[in-house]
Formats: sequence, structure tokens, C-alpha cells
Amino acid sequence: MLRTHTCGELTINDAGKEVTLSGWVFRSRDQGGMIFIDLRDRYGVTQLVFLNPAKAVDSGQSSAVSQKLYDDVKTLGREFVIKATGKVQKRSKSNPNLSTGEIEILVESLELLNASKTPPFTLEDETDGGDELRMKYRYLDLRRDVVKNNLLNRHKVAQAIREYLDGQGFADVETPFLIKSTPEGARDFVVPSRVNQGEFYALPQSPQTFKQLLMVAGFDRYYQIVRCFRDEDLRADRQPEFTQIDCEMAFVEQEDVLNMFEGMVKHAFKKVRNIEFGAFPRMTFADALKYYGNDKPDTRFEILLHEITDVAKGKNFNVIDGAEYVGAIAVPGASEYTRKQTDELTEFVKRSQIGAKGLIYVKYAVDGTLKSSVDKFYTPEDLKKWADAAEAKPGDLILVVAGDLTTSRRALSELRLELGNRLGLRDKNVYKPLWVLDFPLLEADKDTGGWVATHHPFTSWKKEDEHYFETDPGKIRANAYDLVINGVELSSGSIRIHDRSKQEKMFSTIGLSKENYEKKFAFILNAFEYGAPPHGGIAFGFDRFCSICVANEDYIREFIAFPKNNAGRDIMMDTPSTLSDEQLKELGLKVEIPK
Amino acid sequence: MLRTHTCGELTINDAGKEVTLSGWVFRSRDQGGMIFIDLRDRYGVTQLVFLNPAKAVDSGQSSAVSQKLYDDVKTLGREFVIKATGKVQKRSKSNPNLSTGEIEILVESLELLNASKTPPFTLEDETDGGDELRMKYRYLDLRRDVVKNNLLNRHKVAQAIREYLDGQGFADVETPFLIKSTPEGARDFVVPSRVNQGEFYALPQSPQTFKQLLMVAGFDRYYQIVRCFRDEDLRADRQPEFTQIDCEMAFVEQEDVLNMFEGMVKHAFKKVRNIEFGAFPRMTFADALKYYGNDKPDTRFEILLHEITDVAKGKNFNVIDGAEYVGAIAVPGASEYTRKQTDELTEFVKRSQIGAKGLIYVKYAVDGTLKSSVDKFYTPEDLKKWADAAEAKPGDLILVVAGDLTTSRRALSELRLELGNRLGLRDKNVYKPLWVLDFPLLEADKDTGGWVATHHPFTSWKKEDEHYFETDPGKIRANAYDLVINGVELSSGSIRIHDRSKQEKMFSTIGLSKENYEKKFAFILNAFEYGAPPHGGIAFGFDRFCSICVANEDYIREFIAFPKNNAGRDIMMDTPSTLSDEQLKELGLKVEIPK
Repeated sequence: MLRTHTCGELTINDAGKEVTLSGWVFRSRDQGGMIFIDLRDRYGVTQLVFLNPAKAVDSGQSSAVSQKLYDDVKTLGREFVIKATGKVQKRSKSNPNLSTGEIEILVESLELLNASKTPPFTLEDETDGGDELRMKYRYLDLRRDVVKNNLLNRHKVAQAIREYLDGQGFADVETPFLIKSTPEGARDFVVPSRVNQGEFYALPQSPQTFKQLLMVAGFDRYYQIVRCFRDEDLRADRQPEFTQIDCEMAFVEQEDVLNMFEGMVKHAFKKVRNIEFGAFPRMTFADALKYYGNDKPDTRFEILLHEITDVAKGKNFNVIDGAEYVGAIAVPGASEYTRKQTDELTEFVKRSQIGAKGLIYVKYAVDGTLKSSVDKFYTPEDLKKWADAAEAKPGDLILVVAGDLTTSRRALSELRLELGNRLGLRDKNVYKPLWVLDFPLLEADKDTGGWVATHHPFTSWKKEDEHYFETDPGKIRANAYDLVINGVELSSGSIRIHDRSKQEKMFSTIGLSKENYEKKFAFILNAFEYGAPPHGGIAFGFDRFCSICVANEDYIREFIAFPKNNAGRDIMMDTPSTLSDEQLKELGLKVEIPK
Repeated sequence: MLRTHTCGELTINDAGKEVTLSGWVFRSRDQGGMIFIDLRDRYGVTQLVFLNPAKAVDSGQSSAVSQKLYDDVKTLGREFVIKATGKVQKRSKSNPNLSTGEIEILVESLELLNASKTPPFTLEDETDGGDELRMKYRYLDLRRDVVKNNLLNRHKVAQAIREYLDGQGFADVETPFLIKSTPEGARDFVVPSRVNQGEFYALPQSPQTFKQLLMVAGFDRYYQIVRCFRDEDLRADRQPEFTQIDCEMAFVEQEDVLNMFEGMVKHAFKKVRNIEFGAFPRMTFADALKYYGNDKPDTRFEILLHEITDVAKGKNFNVIDGAEYVGAIAVPGASEYTRKQTDELTEFVKRSQIGAKGLIYVKYAVDGTLKSSVDKFYTPEDLKKWADAAEAKPGDLILVVAGDLTTSRRALSELRLELGNRLGLRDKNVYKPLWVLDFPLLEADKDTGGWVATHHPFTSWKKEDEHYFETDPGKIRANAYDLVINGVELSSGSIRIHDRSKQEKMFSTIGLSKENYEKKFAFILNAFEYGAPPHGGIAFGFDRFCSICVANEDYIREFIAFPKNNAGRDIMMDTPSTLSDEQLKELGLKVEIPK
């Protein structure tokens, strides 16, 4: 028996009991007459007391330990693993920050279960360990309360999700991981087959086709919390493997799906954070771009984009007159920004990631006067019209970007988020969910000039837009929806195609030849001919869901037990790594790196 | 709105309600005056009635449907998907086999949601489809109640498992799928890295090292229902990917683990099947081999192996005198077996999979006389001694195998299972769980003459057997345990090594060089130096758990939604399959199949 209790459960009600605890030496303090050790496990910290036999005699107390043991205790270092037996007693000075803060254990016997080297970084919430070091010793990093609690809370989120979906009759059905490579969208990770040399499985980017087959099979409501894989060129906080809450429903329309999963999100936030929401607002994709410049608007603050193209043009200022779009945001209370501040913002939008040509500002002083960076071209009366169009009030700083529509909107969107940060408008205690609806079905592929599916090629479209297939495919609206919280895309879904001819039309539109799609997707096309019901679904990025729900941060790595770094490496295991020649030969493969 | 109710929920209490149902045409019967359609969905079957407008007038009833619609109904084939609206009414003749058997829907309007080709096999519990066809059209096979219910019950098992483990404070922590190849034990599936050309990830055979790291990290109690991968040469009912209930606990001894997971199994059987167990019996590995010839005994019936070597030797019968081991089983009530029957049993043990040289029988007649196939060498008095040693009673058939220990025990084990089948002693309604304890730590590798880990190289051993490392490693008993039910191994586990030097000793014993194990396992060896607690765990084959718990059959494929066939292929998707040259080039790989 290695313990009778954990380090988190003893209280004053246990006083007098003989107990055995096991755990890690968290902190120790030698006070001469006695040594205190804070013993830590997953559940908490309990104070152990060892009385110095020599001093105990002096002070009239009787120590329960021998001098030998007492001397051993002095040698216990941080993170040593020990088992201690003794009596629970009331502390002379209680610690209100600990659940066990009223008691301590007067130790009678001790066993060293394992020693520990000194950890390479401190195991406190605020650690001195850098990212690389923490990842290399992730098993130590995970001992820190803050990281440990992220993962325990992740489990709580999963429990809440399962509780809700189980309750709604969703069946958790496991789908295969060794599937078929269908190189559309992102790249697949592949798995060479040894038994069928020269052939490969692929790891799923999502169980998309399987969940649709389960609908064809009549499972009606399906979910899975499931690992997915995407071989993307990595960027910050992208993981090659990630977890998805994957859901699908049959005999539903968009409204049914939105309501069901709005309910799920509410349930999880209530259970995990005790946060309650009203009905989630909804916005079309077109409006999201128009007012926020972005299909995942952070609606915690109401700095909106206003198009002022018509108002601004015609004053012989080339930058404006030659622009496809002129847009403005009014920043409340910022009319007194200094030259340095406006210069910073100009540099911000000119960064290559954003790519605006420049930034025009208009200071709308509290006294109503207007001064701008383009006074050469525009009179105060002209600028007043801008201010009105931008719904600015005296005291505001109006920021204007002109250029092509896409870049200018993106620049204004980034600018509003940056100003939201600077003005403290993106409050961590505030959650603003939003459904974004009516995404375009297709978007132009810059490289090929063809069309690609905005969501994925299994997404259905609005009947009334069908005629655009012949005239203007970019205008077709999909039955697709995203759930956004605080500017972060939490989930994405759609009502699917369930008809073979429509599915073939979609494949053709995105440039797949009949031969190609019949090779890759025969199984799903065939399935649609055997009584496929109308169906639709949604998938939530589970890592992100946890990060947002628990911490209101979009930093998923802190919610993954063993994440990869930005180069896709696990630096603790040191992988990926090379294979032996024997392994390669068995697989019928040769490494041949292009020079 | 595609439905107001499912096909499984309407009862006589809903009579008079206007409802809309959607589902599949399961059966239809045209009775001239009316057409009945059994509409099916996941939840049940509801009868739809369409009155023939022509006949309705004749009979004085009024039909709710037009002649056009009525004619359309006649064209609806099996598995067409329809949406029907109408009124719930009492049936003239109720069907007690259906939850909806007292009502029917008098249909007023109908919408065809999707047509269906005729399924290539019948979708009844007893289908006419062969395995290959069922797998190719798995989405249709899954519509059959029996397969659908297997998977829905699988979800119930998972729920019960989670409920228990969540309640016991186990944390569900997700571990990575893209890990490091450590080619010990079975072969890894590998995943080439595109970003790091020439390097590979491996898919986990189990999260073994990660769960141990989580114990080092202080997670204390961990579980996961998780996919695992093993690139084995396939045999019947082996899947390259399978699901495991993976569990680990810190600060435990073997007894703690056994009790915890005995509780889990009891909870699951109670929840899913309403079956209750008493305390699970326990048996050592040595006794299991001695009495059952097998480390996973089917204890539903008590035909036991008895060694009669000493009793039988010394009568100048070479087969016996030259044997390492002579063993017998007494088959109750089989003394009258015919020559044909005993010949069959002889052929059975001589099959190459079993490999016994022959079978000796002794018929112990009800009248107490003894007759054997070796009467030339043994008198009735001799045979009586055999009978006593085999604990046989008059009326029994005594079957004797002689030869080397391993083969003979295996032959007797197979023989007792075969006779258990023939005598109807392996009752599907009976569950006999059994803990098998004290497995050997090491077994001899026939190919290399070295030692391999019986369980895995992270398993600890009994202190009192430590001295055998120097003298007779095969005698070291591990702190390892299996849970067996009805002769099927449901789970396997052990108390782990948590000390670097012991782990290194184990790696060396199984023939890994220091260079090799430090390359492959540096992370876990290092982790053991930073305060690793004592820990142990267990893993259950989840597919098998479901198969046994739900159906008391060891046939996992029927509990997997999309299984692979015996060649590791998914014949529905037609995978594994070849990659494009472009994909291979990106991965820095060339297919080079040895001739």
C-alpha cells in the first residue's frame, strides 16, 4: 500500500488519523528544530513535519523519527519521490490558500521511492524554462499546475461535449485511420503498406467521407472526438496532428444543425466555466467582410469598417481616385494620437503580411475640427463627409485605407484588431459567439485560375444560386456555416450534397476529371445511389475549443500533452527520425532526396 | 423541417396527431385498396398507409392522397428515402413486435428525398450477402439491425467505461499518433515526413511510453480509448488498426490495479448487459498451463489436464517412455465414443497447427471396465492407475497425449476446447472471468536464442526472482497479469520499471546495445531520473471487449464500422493504393520493390 490518502484531501476532520502519503518533494524548509516538506501530487500539497530528535528532547517534545532518518530527510532534494507515514495534526499556523492548509503530518516513517536530478527549470506557474527546454522535458513541464490544469480541463470539456451529444442520441462511431489518399485540399500524410508493397494508406484529414457514409447507413446522428492529420507547411501554432469534434446528422436542414451545436457550445461553457450565453447572433459572410473585413470577426468591440469610396473620390488624389475600394474605421477617443502613433499604424498596415500601400488618417478633434494626412486634397468640409460616412464622432481618429478590395479590407480588419488590443477592447472575460452564414461555395485558385471548394467539395449550395454555375460560380452561396468566438473560428460545417449527379457536378467544377473522381471517390458516389438521406454536419477544432473555453486564448499547444514544435518535430522523443535499411527494404522503399 | 418524429417513437398516445416522418422504404405491400409501407430509420419502423383514391370512394372511405401520388407510391422501391406527412391512427391489427406496432400513419403528402438502386444483398439480420460483398457495400451492411446494434452497443460499452474511469478520477489525456519508430516487438507502421525528407514518424502500437511519462508528470491516473497500429502479418480477425482502453496508475501495487479494473469490467457488464459478477478468481500462469495447457483458459467447463508421466512410464511403450510429458484429460460421459469419433479427435490433434504425434484413448466404461488403444502395452490395472491420475469416473473417455511439454499441453488444451464445443459446455450465456498472474518476464526467442520480453520491456519483475537474471532468466516472474474471459484474453498489464538502472538491465537482457537503447529510448530513461513514481497499468482490447461483452463472441470485425479484410485492405475505399509520382517526390521516396 503506497498511500492511504492523496496530498489533496486531508482536513482538520482527519486530525489524529494515522495516514500514509506518497508524492514529490515540492519545497522543504529546515528550521533547525524541525524540517517542513511540502509534499505534492496531482491533487494538492500537504505539509510534512519532521522533528529533530536532538532538539525535540530540548524542547520537551518527543520526535517520532530517528536521528538517522532526520539526517536523511535533509538530503531530500526537489522532486524526490517519497512515501511518508505519520499522524495528521492541526497546524500551528494554517494556510488558507491550501485545501489541506489547516493540517500537517507529523512523520513517523519515511521511504524514498525514487531520487530526482534537479529539474532544468522551475516547476512553478511562472517558470524560468524557455519553450525548447520545456518541450524537451515535457514530462516535467506537465507537473506545473498551469499546464496540468489545462489538460485536466481539456478532459472536462470532452466530458461536457460527450454528455451533451450522448444525451441527444448521437452515436460515437469510430472511423478508420488507415484510409485512402485523396490529394485534394491539404496534403495527406501517407503510410506505406508492407504487405502490399508500393501501395500506401493515408491518414485522415478528417473523417468527412466516413461520417457521410454513416448517414447513408442510417446512423442518423454521429459524433467522434477524433485525431486528424494534415501535412501542411507548418506555421506558428499549427500542429500536424490535431483533434476534432466531428459530427453529422441526417434528415436535417441548416437550422437544425445550428440549433443543435449552439446548444452543445452553451452546455460546455456552462459546465466547464459556468458561463451562460443567450442566442448566438448570426451574420452573413458578405456582411462579415463588409463590416469587419474578415470572415471571423471579433465582435467584442464595435469598430466597424465603412466604405467611403463614393464620398472620397473625385478630388484628384490618385491614391483614392485609382482605388477599387476606400474604407474607413473610426477609432473612439483616439483623435489626439501623436505622429509617432499614426506612423506606427502606417507601418503596421504596410507590413508584407498585410500589404496595404499606406494609411490615411483624419483626426476629428473633440471641438469638431478635422485635420488629416491628406489636407492637400481635401477641405475640412470634404473630411466632414468622410467622418459622417464612417460614423465618426468628435474625438475619434479616422483611419482610411484605399486600394484593391481584398487587401484593403484585410488591412482594415488587422488594424481594428490591433487597435482593439491597444485600447483594451478585447477583454479576456468576454465571450462573443457568432454564426457566420452563407459562405461562398467556390473561390478562385490564384495559381491555376480554376475553382476550389471554399469549405470542401461535399458542401451543397443554395438552390436559388444554382444558375450561377453557368455564369459566375464565385457568386454561388453554399449551405455552409462557421461558429466564431472572439475572432477565432471554432467550427465549420455545411449541409452536404447527397445526390450523385450534384456531387459529380461539384467535382467537375473544381477541375477533377471523371476518371480522377471515379478513382478517388467511387465509394461515396456509389453510396449516394443507394438511398442517401439529406444530411449535414459540423466539426470543431477540439484543441482550439479547449484553449478558448478554458483560457480564452488561441494558443493550442498549451492544451496538448505532447505537442510538436513549429518544424513538426517532437523534440522530447527526437522524431521524425531515420529508419533502418532493413525497415525500408521491407516496405519496398528507397529514400531519394531531390538535390 | 424533414421530420417531426423518428420512426421509433409514436404510440397510441399520439393518435390523431399530424406528423412528418422521414426514412427508408423497408418493405411495401400493395393490397389493391391500399398500400402499406414500413418506413425505417435508426430508431425503428413505422407503418405508413396510402389509401387508393379510386377504391376509397367505393368503400366509403376518403383518401387523403391524389391518384397521381398513389401511383407514385407504387414505384417506390426498397431503400428509397421518403418524407411522409399524415395523421397517426390506431391500426386495425396491432403488431406486438414493434414499439410502434399499435399505430400507423394515414399519409396525406409525400416527398421523395432520394431514390435507391436495389441493394446487392438483403438488409435483414440473416443476409444473403457474402463477406466480400458486405464489406464493399459496408454502408448498406451497416443498415442491418444486427450490425447497427453491435456498433450502438459499442458506444454503450465506451460510455460505461468512461463513466467508471471518470468517476475514479482517471484523466483522459490524448497522446500523439506521430511518434518515434522503436522496432521492438511487432512492426511499426511508419509515416514519411515531407518537411524532414528521409525521416519518418511511426504510428503507436500503444501509448505505452507516453502513459508512463504521464505518470512521471504526476497525472496519477490516466486513461484513453485510443487507436493503435500494428503492422503484423495478418491472420483471421486481426486488424492493422485496433482500439485499446489504455490505463495507467501511479503509486500502486499489483493488487490496486487488479481491484480497480475488476471494478471496471463489472461496471461495464452490469451497465450494458445487466450481468453481475462475484470476485474474479485468480490463477498463476504456471497453474493455467498445468491445468488448462493454456495461459488463457476457458474456465466455463472443468475438464482439466492431468500429468500422468510417472504413472504411465516403464511399460516398454516407446511413445510414452520417450516422452518429456504425458498428459490426460477425462471427458465426462464420452466412454462410448465410436472409432470414427476417436479417429476424428486423433486427426484433430495431428493437424499441423497443433502438431501432436498421436492420441491415446482409454474408454472407462460405466461398468468400470477399461479399454484402450494401447492394450498391447497396458493391463486394465495399469489403465486404472491412469484413470485415477486423470481423476476420471466410469463413463468417461480418457484422452492422452505424450511428447514434448509445450506441444503436448497445447494439444490437450485444443482438445479440451474442441470437446467443450462438442459437448455444449461453452455456453454463450455464461461468463467466466479469470485473472492470470505471475507471467514469466522473459521468453526464449527461437530464432536468435536470446531473450524477448513476454509482456513488454517496461515490465518489472518480482524481487525474489532477481537472482535468476544470472542463472536462469526464463524463471523470472514478472509483475504482469492478464484478464481472461471464457478463454479470450481481454486485457494485459503490469507494474512497470520506474528506475533507470533496472530499465537498462532489462534492455540489455533482451539484447539491445547501450547505443541502441539510448538512441531509441533516451526520453524515457531520462524521465526515470527526474522523480518517476512507482506505477503500473493495463490495456484492454476494446474491439474484443465489445465483442465479448455484447455478443460473447470473439469476432471483432462485426464490432468495427469499417474494418479491413484479412489482407489489410479496405475493399470499399479500395485502399491501400498507389501514390502519384508527384507525392512520392515531395516525400523524397522511391518505390523499389525487391524482386
